[in-house]
Amino acid sequence: MEFKVNSKSLEKLLTKIIPAVPSRTPMPILENFLFELKDGLLTIYATDLEIALKSSLNVVAEENMKLVVPARLLYDIVRSLQETTILFQITPGGKINLKTDNGVYTISYLLPEEFPDIPTFPEPGSTSTENIGEVIISGNELKRAIDQTSFAMSKEDMRPAMMGTLMEFTEEGLRFVSTDGHRLVNLLKKEIHLTYNEQYIVPERAISVLVKILEEKDVKILLSKTYISYKVGDIEFITRLIAQKYPDYKSVIPLENENKLKIRTAELLSAVKRMLLFSPTNSRKVKFSITANNVEISAEDIDQGAFAKENIYCEYSGESIDIGFNSAYVNDVISHLQTEEEIYFKLHSPTKAVIIEPVKKKDNEDIMMLLMPVRLNN
Amino acid sequence: MEFKVNSKSLEKLLTKIIPAVPSRTPMPILENFLFELKDGLLTIYATDLEIALKSSLNVVAEENMKLVVPARLLYDIVRSLQETTILFQITPGGKINLKTDNGVYTISYLLPEEFPDIPTFPEPGSTSTENIGEVIISGNELKRAIDQTSFAMSKEDMRPAMMGTLMEFTEEGLRFVSTDGHRLVNLLKKEIHLTYNEQYIVPERAISVLVKILEEKDVKILLSKTYISYKVGDIEFITRLIAQKYPDYKSVIPLENENKLKIRTAELLSAVKRMLLFSPTNSRKVKFSITANNVEISAEDIDQGAFAKENIYCEYSGESIDIGFNSAYVNDVISHLQTEEEIYFKLHSPTKAVIIEPVKKKDNEDIMMLLMPVRLNN
Repeated sequence: MEFKVNSKSLEKLLTKIIPAVPSRTPMPILENFLFELKDGLLTIYATDLEIALKSSLNVVAEENMKLVVPARLLYDIVRSLQETTILFQITPGGKINLKTDNGVYTISYLLPEEFPDIPTFPEPGSTSTENIGEVIISGNELKRAIDQTSFAMSKEDMRPAMMGTLMEFTEEGLRFVSTDGHRLVNLLKKEIHLTYNEQYIVPERAISVLVKILEEKDVKILLSKTYISYKVGDIEFITRLIAQKYPDYKSVIPLENENKLKIRTAELLSAVKRMLLFSPTNSRKVKFSITANNVEISAEDIDQGAFAKENIYCEYSGESIDIGFNSAYVNDVISHLQTEEEIYFKLHSPTKAVIIEPVKKKDNEDIMMLLMPVRLNN
Repeated sequence: MEFKVNSKSLEKLLTKIIPAVPSRTPMPILENFLFELKDGLLTIYATDLEIALKSSLNVVAEENMKLVVPARLLYDIVRSLQETTILFQITPGGKINLKTDNGVYTISYLLPEEFPDIPTFPEPGSTSTENIGEVIISGNELKRAIDQTSFAMSKEDMRPAMMGTLMEFTEEGLRFVSTDGHRLVNLLKKEIHLTYNEQYIVPERAISVLVKILEEKDVKILLSKTYISYKVGDIEFITRLIAQKYPDYKSVIPLENENKLKIRTAELLSAVKRMLLFSPTNSRKVKFSITANNVEISAEDIDQGAFAKENIYCEYSGESIDIGFNSAYVNDVISHLQTEEEIYFKLHSPTKAVIIEPVKKKDNEDIMMLLMPVRLNN
């Protein structure tokens, strides 16, 4: 049994598929690709059982077959080759010879029976009781939405739902939500709809792999209760969803934050980055003292005997207020709004969540971030 | 006491000086800069007691002083600022206020008495019995010489001399030598001379810092028995030398290697990089089977069930020979000759050191690398 493939075409495909191969796993079989050759089409799969990536390319072959090959070794060999034709010769003794003009590279393969079941998206019509949703979104837009929200996902497995990013379809559009209890991002894409309302929670690992395969081109998303499928060109990415209820994030968004602070994003971000150097490693506390046309930002690290204070021009309508934040969280939130020229901080009191949002709204998008203050003990 | 300085000028200077600040040290005082302000000239020092960097810039000041400031914190503050004027106010209470238009950053300082003695180059004439050498070399040329030799320095402290790079002045010129016993580099710069012959062993840490500060411009090198000083523009870099005798490297360079193999460097390097994937992690063995017009390179990793073999065109005059190498070492050596179109392997037998050198010699430079074979047990 044998087939021929161009080294650079194969490299391109493997580069897209290898992110699904787990780097540490108690199941070494997952460190392999599954090759499926059928009627001249080679389909390559990789999975960690939570997510799966697959893609295909045409090869020169006369037979069909399935086999399991070491992912990292194959990838390293293929990408170390110049552009050439590789002849894959599969021997009955469990070896594959990769032949090029100058060399032969022999690696071992395993039988396809040893490879576990790959997460698959339900066939249309197979689950009559379930809605299968379908939306199309530009790759750039999806990437940007993920970049802006996913940083706020929780790293703690106390509440598994919060370890993912929520994709929530409502009448208003598609909402991306993530939170770790200290900050929350709520991004609405108004132009993306399903015919029904539903919540899907995409796990962190899927998010991190998804951003690697997204390109400019459109992504077709298929949604079932347990899986999402993302089709990007000839790549299909499938992920299991987190089977939990997402916390009622709406109940934590304050309605009464009547005091509006308007400030230039770049100036604030630059000051906050300096405050990171002065906020103590344990509390990371930074203090905002807000008056009509000035925010004084300050931080003190007693252990280092260091203190910093900056003044930034702002427009503010309410009562003067002192409020504390975790400097790393403020930095995260503002960094993810840095394409905005100006942002609002909407405040109520030093102990209530603060809403941060762009001054200029986009037509097809609403973004809102929420930040919990920390207590100022003075 | 106060002085004013431009933030970007200070940043540029600190960027050059900070490499000498140790990142882990049992002496926390070394994590500081020493500031010396004298007649409007601010000189900044950093040292780990083995090496020292210093540089100066003009500031606006009316008094002289010396103080010790936290290196990393100061550097991080300064480089986080936009271009601005920083006013340094030194208070008697052990604090420095860095004032800019928008902010005040307060850090602690220590007294200069707490800073240890900085390695210094002997004043000319201070050591009447000692030769002080002086040479000038272009920064690019020195950088290239270090890049090509220092990779072969030993990492093992069994033989401290081999943990440095030898700079040896002879009638022929300046020789750079490094070796770890498995491979050796011997680079002669014919145009650089002292009036006398001497050996200087520069420690690894000094080499790694030196390459960071080298630029295109000329470097003035001063040499004493115990220290070398490198002057690059307004930076002075001083390092203690390794006070050991360098092993007699000449005695290991074979004279009888009469069998010459000529091969294209890029082709060989590309094949060797693939062999790295197949050579077992413990022995790293790769086999060269050399005949008149062909080198067959092969490697086998029994644990992975993987084997690779490539053929490369060559010109070879001697008896056919099989010889084994450590693939990582072959890769190192050839990588550092990759600007050469063709190289020679000069061989004698499968157990004798192999000489590797460029086919085309340069007028003002001789380079030779030596590689010990490993036993082929078959």
